[in-house]
Amino acid sequence: MRPQDIIKQKRDGKALSDTEIASFIDGVCSGAWEDYQITALVMAMFINGMTTREQNTITREMLHSGKVMDLSDIDAPKADKHSTGGVGDKTSLVIAPLAAACGLAVPMISGRGLGHTGGTLDKLESIPGYNVRLSYAEIKNVMRQCGFALAGQTAEIAPADKKLYALRDATATVPYIPLIVASIMSKKLAEGLDALVLDVKTGKGAFIKDLAESKRLAGALCATGKAFGVRTEALVTDMNEPLGLYVGNTLETYECLLILRNETPREAERTLELSVDLTANMLVQCGIEKTLRKARELLMAAIESGAALEKFRQNIELQGGDPRICERPEKLIGTKLAETQIIAPKSGFVQDVDSLAVGECVSIVGGGRVKASDTVDHAVGFKCIAKVGDRVKKGDTVGLLLTRTPKAALSVSEKLKGAYKISPEAPKPRRLVRARVK
Amino acid sequence: MRPQDIIKQKRDGKALSDTEIASFIDGVCSGAWEDYQITALVMAMFINGMTTREQNTITREMLHSGKVMDLSDIDAPKADKHSTGGVGDKTSLVIAPLAAACGLAVPMISGRGLGHTGGTLDKLESIPGYNVRLSYAEIKNVMRQCGFALAGQTAEIAPADKKLYALRDATATVPYIPLIVASIMSKKLAEGLDALVLDVKTGKGAFIKDLAESKRLAGALCATGKAFGVRTEALVTDMNEPLGLYVGNTLETYECLLILRNETPREAERTLELSVDLTANMLVQCGIEKTLRKARELLMAAIESGAALEKFRQNIELQGGDPRICERPEKLIGTKLAETQIIAPKSGFVQDVDSLAVGECVSIVGGGRVKASDTVDHAVGFKCIAKVGDRVKKGDTVGLLLTRTPKAALSVSEKLKGAYKISPEAPKPRRLVRARVK
Repeated sequence: MRPQDIIKQKRDGKALSDTEIASFIDGVCSGAWEDYQITALVMAMFINGMTTREQNTITREMLHSGKVMDLSDIDAPKADKHSTGGVGDKTSLVIAPLAAACGLAVPMISGRGLGHTGGTLDKLESIPGYNVRLSYAEIKNVMRQCGFALAGQTAEIAPADKKLYALRDATATVPYIPLIVASIMSKKLAEGLDALVLDVKTGKGAFIKDLAESKRLAGALCATGKAFGVRTEALVTDMNEPLGLYVGNTLETYECLLILRNETPREAERTLELSVDLTANMLVQCGIEKTLRKARELLMAAIESGAALEKFRQNIELQGGDPRICERPEKLIGTKLAETQIIAPKSGFVQDVDSLAVGECVSIVGGGRVKASDTVDHAVGFKCIAKVGDRVKKGDTVGLLLTRTPKAALSVSEKLKGAYKISPEAPKPRRLVRARVK
Repeated sequence: MRPQDIIKQKRDGKALSDTEIASFIDGVCSGAWEDYQITALVMAMFINGMTTREQNTITREMLHSGKVMDLSDIDAPKADKHSTGGVGDKTSLVIAPLAAACGLAVPMISGRGLGHTGGTLDKLESIPGYNVRLSYAEIKNVMRQCGFALAGQTAEIAPADKKLYALRDATATVPYIPLIVASIMSKKLAEGLDALVLDVKTGKGAFIKDLAESKRLAGALCATGKAFGVRTEALVTDMNEPLGLYVGNTLETYECLLILRNETPREAERTLELSVDLTANMLVQCGIEKTLRKARELLMAAIESGAALEKFRQNIELQGGDPRICERPEKLIGTKLAETQIIAPKSGFVQDVDSLAVGECVSIVGGGRVKASDTVDHAVGFKCIAKVGDRVKKGDTVGLLLTRTPKAALSVSEKLKGAYKISPEAPKPRRLVRARVK
């Protein structure tokens, strides 16, 4: 089958057959399709649409473009969480040890930050010595010993996705649900899971800003998971405000350690709430608990007892990191940084903290990547001192920007100030979980 | 402007601004746009459409991506003909010397054959020694001396088109009128013409098979020519049957020499008719004659007097070829070839000769290119002995395939036989010129 002939079908709005899609994904991996042919087809898919069958077929072909993990020799139920990405979204570092402490096996393959959103791998690498470049055998070995592994995508897992995603990113074809579904699910299905919970972010700092569209994505992800025999549920959660207290790699890891130590600061309560809610969903889907309420109780107990922290300590040791940070989290944030206070220009209630602006500013001062090849400065970041709903007085410090030099803060401080909306009335309480989709 | 942001506009169905289109064509030439970004935008243009303004802008930007010829120091009116490509379509070799003999200056930049259609450059190169690789200065010099030059596109002329066309060919985005218009007109407008006549082929062996669509293309081409200040008219002409007696490079050149020698064979009458009609249009547009009828008379006189043949003789000499073929055209076809007769399976009238099939078969036996990098065997080809409307008897030879070896004919002889439709009734006469568009 010539690429041109397959492209022509989709150009003319026809559904592609399973054979045509298989030939496409084969060609992506083998190089038989040129990059410029791949992007032409992807643009035609974006504009002319794909059927559910096409979506499932492309997911299957992308999944089988690489290795599918076989975790059948691990007795515990296999479960994972995946987030579509947000600002201050650090729940993976809480969820993985927490789930492991409650009897799940978690093979958590994660990604890096790009643009205004952070990535789990970057956060983990703020732990001195921590190694996220694990082979398939190492992932299994670490999981066997502590119940979970946190690692980057190996070249063996869904290689088609890696190439397709980079091309989509450069051609404005990322935000299309069937392709997002195929990208996410081809990687998650390669983990050999029994259950999956998805955290579909919605709002200003999310990849998809519209609630209805976020729900549609959640529905498509769940349907695809089920089509492949994996129990899958999704929470659609608010990403209008940064999640929790910190944005920035080391700072976020520090926040997670506080939570696992049962020392959750007030501003980080939503990080705890969301981590527990998502993990509870995993426990119920795997039959460890019958109800979300019971599951939440079990999880809170695992934090209070120190069992979850102990799991993380074991994992850090196994993955080459310095486990002493579990006992002394403040060791992580010892770097001397320049502090720039963001001041409330008037008194009132915090109505809004623009998570997109905060994410972009942290990225600009070096805490994230503007483009994929950038290196990341783990230490820098932002402290969200005033959260939405808080009452502040004119002159109060509402946020704190941490940069390498005072000069580095200059280019973003005005934008950060503008991220805070303050008004005389208290805002309507905004629910963290906006929808639950099965 | 980032390519992604421009792609996104068109992806969402918006019209691109002049600045955005200029940035795109700049990027195509400079390499600032990756090939995979170019094809993504082109696919979005294809599916979501382009306005007339966008069509004119992209044409202008492609035109100015290269050099525009300045022929102001040549006194004669500058005119050219362009064909959208067909099978046996050899009129350029008659038109250029004929127009020059009647007082026009013709800077005819031509292309090579691809797929089932032939190319003027390949036909010319069947003349021993003939050189189509002329520089800008050489083109002007040859024109000054004999009134016309026949040359390939130099790297200086519309370089954006060359790159875009190759990418469109590989991504099923060729058949879209605004992009066809930009491709054709960016090159033709670079010739610095006063007038242009277009031969828009329609039917089985044409690039566009549907008459209404062919008329639309003709209309768009004429409107664009006029928008750039060039008098432009189009003839929409039949390409259901191969044009004239021969298909194949040397054979077609031989046919043109017979016509210029005023020895037109019966089967080549339509080649003469179409050549004269197109050239007459050029003469009238340039004001050399008032009516097409008068122009045709002038042109026929130029053939009868030998003036047109003399122009071709001069040109061949100037471009390095052997001018003796003008006196002895049979020297061209001296190569000993294997002959395979195509036999009428029954008696009746020739209803149809499938030009697409004939073109493809000639290409397969080496007379054309299946892909752009193929080399061409000038000698091989096909003789169309029975034309549509002819009465044949069962067992008559209706066509003659000329190949290097008898074996080379085996793969196509059945297909060639199938190209002939014979039925008891005489077919309705099919007009050569299906529409005239201004």
